[in-house]
Amino acid sequence: MQLVTVGTVAFDDIETPRGRAERAIGGAATYISRAASFFVQNQGIVSVVGDDFPKDELREMQGLGIDLSGLEIKEGQKSFFWAGKYHENMNQRDTLITDLNVLANFKPVLPELYRTSNYLMLGNLTPEVQMDVLSQMKEKPKLVALDTMNFWMDVAMDALLEVLKRIDVLTINEEEARQLSGEFSLVKAANVIHRMGPRYLIIKKGEHGALLFHEGSVFSFPALPIAEVMDPTGAGDTFAGGFMGYLARTNDHSFENMKRAIVYASVMASFCVEDFSLARLKALTDSEIPLRISEFKNLTLFDVNHW
Amino acid sequence: MQLVTVGTVAFDDIETPRGRAERAIGGAATYISRAASFFVQNQGIVSVVGDDFPKDELREMQGLGIDLSGLEIKEGQKSFFWAGKYHENMNQRDTLITDLNVLANFKPVLPELYRTSNYLMLGNLTPEVQMDVLSQMKEKPKLVALDTMNFWMDVAMDALLEVLKRIDVLTINEEEARQLSGEFSLVKAANVIHRMGPRYLIIKKGEHGALLFHEGSVFSFPALPIAEVMDPTGAGDTFAGGFMGYLARTNDHSFENMKRAIVYASVMASFCVEDFSLARLKALTDSEIPLRISEFKNLTLFDVNHW
Repeated sequence: MQLVTVGTVAFDDIETPRGRAERAIGGAATYISRAASFFVQNQGIVSVVGDDFPKDELREMQGLGIDLSGLEIKEGQKSFFWAGKYHENMNQRDTLITDLNVLANFKPVLPELYRTSNYLMLGNLTPEVQMDVLSQMKEKPKLVALDTMNFWMDVAMDALLEVLKRIDVLTINEEEARQLSGEFSLVKAANVIHRMGPRYLIIKKGEHGALLFHEGSVFSFPALPIAEVMDPTGAGDTFAGGFMGYLARTNDHSFENMKRAIVYASVMASFCVEDFSLARLKALTDSEIPLRISEFKNLTLFDVNHW
Repeated sequence: MQLVTVGTVAFDDIETPRGRAERAIGGAATYISRAASFFVQNQGIVSVVGDDFPKDELREMQGLGIDLSGLEIKEGQKSFFWAGKYHENMNQRDTLITDLNVLANFKPVLPELYRTSNYLMLGNLTPEVQMDVLSQMKEKPKLVALDTMNFWMDVAMDALLEVLKRIDVLTINEEEARQLSGEFSLVKAANVIHRMGPRYLIIKKGEHGALLFHEGSVFSFPALPIAEVMDPTGAGDTFAGGFMGYLARTNDHSFENMKRAIVYASVMASFCVEDFSLARLKALTDSEIPLRISEFKNLTLFDVNHW
């Protein structure tokens, strides 16, 4: 198995200034695995849904090479449900409803096949569940990435610090980097966070792009300026899925290749926000990816060799 | 004359979380011309000071190739004074005091030599003064850039719109771009602003870098992540000075060369914030510039030729 992802598989109600979606398919593992499916043929997800989750969605995921033997389906129970609202500044959102449902007592069990995966993505969930999954790996994967959020820093900081000791890449946003480190400067925050465990820190800045910090080096990559962001839901997870999918495909996590992974991650996220929920990722074809890469090259590349 | 700049020459009281400076040398034209002096040997400024302005500062400017025949010194009057305070998020600031002093009745008169300059920088001042300077040019300069702020949009929008019709490059921040255009999306804002006159729009995003919009193309360039920003005062003007200085030196405003100008602009701004007031720019040597360019290359360049 090239990549294993733990995270939510869920229903989302979404409202943005551009419109709304009800009972849309969502969840971190959904976005991560779908984005990664453009890069790897053989991945698994660890999650749980109720029997209300549409079977055709699950079949579609399997058709993309996403193994579902790690997805528990709880009969007679309801899937995780999130409702949120975005304002014009889509870097921030209001959570209106969080119904944990099946997630309340989620005890992940990794199928045997998953326990030797080289790449492991711990999507945003309780640090305890993230640690539980990590502990079920037979040997340390080649690369473990973890996504988390301010909520876990507020309510489970000790558990979060424990799991941070054992991972390689942390993805969080600016405010979370400041909260976790106690430093306002992102350069100083990165140094503090490196000492907590993660050798790589990705700071997601939404419309301002992302920063990758590693051993005193920094790589900065912008988001694509988009005329009309429809729905940013899942953009961070899609970014993570593109990042881990590209690394797993190339099986190379040199810093130079990590930069490329950030580029592909940004490409996938730029598609995600162009429509509601999973719609754009569902419509996306392989041939659109190199075209979007060219757009990012036009956006970022320059030549200053002559003074 | 390679470049003419109109703007303030002033005293600043500055407070930031890193410290404070009192009666420091400041003003838009001061920062712009000093940054540009690393690129051009022959520039002039159009401004006004009182007889309280230190003569040795003026001599130092002249020593950098900054012609002061356009700088009026009003005997018995006081120079423009600004006091401001920054918080941890240095993208925003509180203005504590604005004493216009000599600036209250400023009627710029361009020396004959200035009226044929190829490059003209209209620093942040009343749109009426900016228009007055532009109207004194004998023929349309090769490139006119204008910096402005939300204040002029609030109190002098009609005059601002008039001068915008006659310029090539507008530099403003994100909020100002949204206010001026009435569009939240920066892509849409750029389209609206292009129709107002400026074929080039530079959106300054502080720690998030800058965007250059031109005829449907966009170039994104980050700010250098800095461990400790001492004082952001003048960073935007220093950026503008680096930009116009580089263009005036190379006398080429193709889009590719404008991208390079954005890189040099960012380099100059990255130095500016490393110390209070003009201190870092005063200490800066030519040989530090290519080193900083290399840092920006490491920060931004990538290679995705192999899939």
